[in-house]
Amino acid sequence: MIYYINLFYMEDKKELLIVALGGNALLDSKSKGTIEEREAAAAITAEQLMPLFQNTRYSVILTHGNGPQVGNLLIQNEEASSKVPPMPLDVCVAETQGEIGFILQKALQNTFNKHGMKNVTLTLLTQVLVDENDPAFSDLSKPVGPYYTKEQTLEILKTKDWKFREDPAGKGYRRVVASPKPVKIMQAGIISDLVARDYSVIAVGGGGIPVWISEENEIRGMEAVIDKDLASAQLAADLKADKLIILTNVECCYINFKKSNQIELRDLNLDEAQTYFDQGHFSAGSMGPKVQAALEFVQNTGNTAIITSIEKLNEALEGSAGTIIHQ
Amino acid sequence: MIYYINLFYMEDKKELLIVALGGNALLDSKSKGTIEEREAAAAITAEQLMPLFQNTRYSVILTHGNGPQVGNLLIQNEEASSKVPPMPLDVCVAETQGEIGFILQKALQNTFNKHGMKNVTLTLLTQVLVDENDPAFSDLSKPVGPYYTKEQTLEILKTKDWKFREDPAGKGYRRVVASPKPVKIMQAGIISDLVARDYSVIAVGGGGIPVWISEENEIRGMEAVIDKDLASAQLAADLKADKLIILTNVECCYINFKKSNQIELRDLNLDEAQTYFDQGHFSAGSMGPKVQAALEFVQNTGNTAIITSIEKLNEALEGSAGTIIHQ
Repeated sequence: MIYYINLFYMEDKKELLIVALGGNALLDSKSKGTIEEREAAAAITAEQLMPLFQNTRYSVILTHGNGPQVGNLLIQNEEASSKVPPMPLDVCVAETQGEIGFILQKALQNTFNKHGMKNVTLTLLTQVLVDENDPAFSDLSKPVGPYYTKEQTLEILKTKDWKFREDPAGKGYRRVVASPKPVKIMQAGIISDLVARDYSVIAVGGGGIPVWISEENEIRGMEAVIDKDLASAQLAADLKADKLIILTNVECCYINFKKSNQIELRDLNLDEAQTYFDQGHFSAGSMGPKVQAALEFVQNTGNTAIITSIEKLNEALEGSAGTIIHQ
Repeated sequence: MIYYINLFYMEDKKELLIVALGGNALLDSKSKGTIEEREAAAAITAEQLMPLFQNTRYSVILTHGNGPQVGNLLIQNEEASSKVPPMPLDVCVAETQGEIGFILQKALQNTFNKHGMKNVTLTLLTQVLVDENDPAFSDLSKPVGPYYTKEQTLEILKTKDWKFREDPAGKGYRRVVASPKPVKIMQAGIISDLVARDYSVIAVGGGGIPVWISEENEIRGMEAVIDKDLASAQLAADLKADKLIILTNVECCYINFKKSNQIELRDLNLDEAQTYFDQGHFSAGSMGPKVQAALEFVQNTGNTAIITSIEKLNEALEGSAGTIIHQ
């Protein structure tokens, strides 16, 4: 039996920031998605994030989406399906966590090193619990993977209980899956331990690998996708983060977006944000889930959420850019 | 400024074991590789490992290979290459760390929970440093991915500087890549921190993502594969582990394997093991790298390595099965 006495001190407690990277931070939608293009995008993003990491007031956890990457992987699974058994969607999300995590982690560590910073980054595989009774499972809404012809769709339905939806623009049929709400970040405790040891953690990639708990009390994968902003808000709530920061390709939220009477939203309390949300100012495919994620985080914690672009991130933290949502 | 005083004690120090799982622990070579087959294989493996995790004398880190999985992923990349830019080998290894890590972690955590154990497992994305001057880069020896016809090979060579080798059995041409020696586990310090917090860590999947440091002092991915047993030995050396345990599909090493004068090897010192290795008793594709990994670990640390099957693991730890290699 060995006894240790350990004396240490902590500087004034750091602010914990959860920063959710938008899809185009890692794969420009205009690019083909070669590794060279993706590494270049990650290097630019890493450089833009440096002021955040250099500010010793902050502990930072990075999260990111995986829309284009998991789409590509589903196409690869499909094209090779006569030779290699396709993996279910949960396993595909896990694959993209490895893929994107590696590219982002490498870019981030190289940028830390270039600036002589001592930060060490890492990527933690992250599962996210969903509720198998979530209404999303009876209203499949999220299109994933390639377009199919009607004949291909009928062929697939012989062996799989997938659901398809016809594309309104006539591009064919696409599989639709559930996008349930995150209930709990399964690795939140581990992430918290890693942050306490000052690691710059990358986690909850692609919204996390969806899992549920069966009647036999077993963790099981779920063929679904979780919105990465909602999953980031859940992580921020689980860890009682000080701020949730959602990065996107516009500087802030707007009402009457892209209309002649467009108005920038700079500072919103919960009621104001909820009202604009209910009025339908934020589109379901882009700003909607970001505002919803911000609302949930502020409601759960009483802390503040920011929606802005990566270029305006530092100004937004000083309060001079972006949309700030608070109690 | 806040001061903390922290008093704690440690039980007699635990033994740190690095346990390398063989390929068939997670994907039976006789199966097609569906998710159902893979989950079933992982569940059996997890159950077989329980006595190890239940023994409070041990801290355990699991490593694993990715041969069949990265082979499948390369086929998927190839089949979809007209639609989706193929990823380089380092990114593919990262994808398999996510894929295999998720399946193994889920099986392991479910088995811990079933037995009422408090263990928490996690998967850490792991890069492994290699030396760009390793002689393996001028003698590409490791075949990866699908077989190609001569015409396909010539077509690929128009855009890529890959190397191919004709299959002696006439199945076509296969890409060959370097299999350099691991120099350092980039995340060894993080793994050590996680073990100190009692997490049951899964790391160095598939031998790790190969990286090198460029002249500009940048971490870069490398199109290569690292032997998972050598990478596990490197992790064991970096962490000064007490034991390296390499699990395979035979109970121990043999000389004159499968001949009438076959002899079980139960206890070898470094000289004996090196002599049998030099005499070519251990085949390059299977037992050779395992004995080499064991030799390197024992030479580097003075500690003991064990080569055995998962079924004989507990007997081997008691000294009554397997091949033990020591100073």
